[in-house]
Amino acid sequence: MTDARFTRTQTAVFNAVRDVLVAEGPAGLTAERLAEASGVARSTIYRNWPDLGALACEVFDFLMHSEPLPRDLDPEAGLLAYLRDYARRLNDPSYVALLLALMEGAARDEAFAAVQRRMFSQTRSRAASIITEGKETGAFDPRLDVKQGVEDVVAPFLFRRLTMQQLITPRMVSELHRRLLERWGPP
Amino acid sequence: MTDARFTRTQTAVFNAVRDVLVAEGPAGLTAERLAEASGVARSTIYRNWPDLGALACEVFDFLMHSEPLPRDLDPEAGLLAYLRDYARRLNDPSYVALLLALMEGAARDEAFAAVQRRMFSQTRSRAASIITEGKETGAFDPRLDVKQGVEDVVAPFLFRRLTMQQLITPRMVSELHRRLLERWGPP
Repeated sequence: MTDARFTRTQTAVFNAVRDVLVAEGPAGLTAERLAEASGVARSTIYRNWPDLGALACEVFDFLMHSEPLPRDLDPEAGLLAYLRDYARRLNDPSYVALLLALMEGAARDEAFAAVQRRMFSQTRSRAASIITEGKETGAFDPRLDVKQGVEDVVAPFLFRRLTMQQLITPRMVSELHRRLLERWGPP
Repeated sequence: MTDARFTRTQTAVFNAVRDVLVAEGPAGLTAERLAEASGVARSTIYRNWPDLGALACEVFDFLMHSEPLPRDLDPEAGLLAYLRDYARRLNDPSYVALLLALMEGAARDEAFAAVQRRMFSQTRSRAASIITEGKETGAFDPRLDVKQGVEDVVAPFLFRRLTMQQLITPRMVSELHRRLLERWGPP
């Protein structure tokens, strides 16, 4: 297979993994279903991705890679941009389906658990750098605990989206932003 | 089938649903697997639970029913008892496996979504009554928003357990309790 042809095959299979997970959940992830959904021969799928769990991990890594955020914002504006981007991702049904499949797999399979850790450490590091910068510039209380701050940023929307089945509205974004600034303001 | 015999059959099948979900996730939930794990004949499973999604929902309802909390505590002690009970449930691998299977199913299936809503409204109502009582007795700020308060109680441990793959330690319980009292104290 040429490189260009492999890339086309890979794109078709990756999209099929996403579509099948969204429509049917992890239970639908079989080579038969992926062949049907991608138009790629089952034998090609078997040859290139003999382990479907590993394939799902590759797709998570590929699709969940976050867009870089604008870099020249002050910490308050950076936090708002972060919350907006996070809300946008959580409101995407594909993202939620992949996230739930990932969490579900992570409970039983170390490969999934490793991808989940990598994904959340990426999420956390972006939020952490905003908080650290805010502490340095004096926008936030210098005694603020970064790890706790990251949890306060990430946990509420995750809870609303995954357990309350709510979409994250612009009003929720500005409300959480306001509450965090109120709590984090310098003494 | 006599009532007693049906109860034995039901218990065996319910336990098998739980065990299969813990070990294999929703993908393992087939009548064949349940027959094997429960020792109940496949035909009996088909006859009594023709819809495995509905069966899973019954099991969630049955197993996730929370223990009643002690009723004669002041709001601060009641909150601590609630957090301890919540941590205990989240640290149980069966509970987490069922919770993830439920969330995963809820994204695609209205029956699962309804069970999830019922489960979280039960969780919420217990936390909400502690907060409401605290506002009435003056233990908590009377301006405290109950819905927001419930989120502040429930979201952090859920985040740590499901996305950070951490167990909830007694130290995390007392730390969250302290932070909530600090934030909710009367003005």
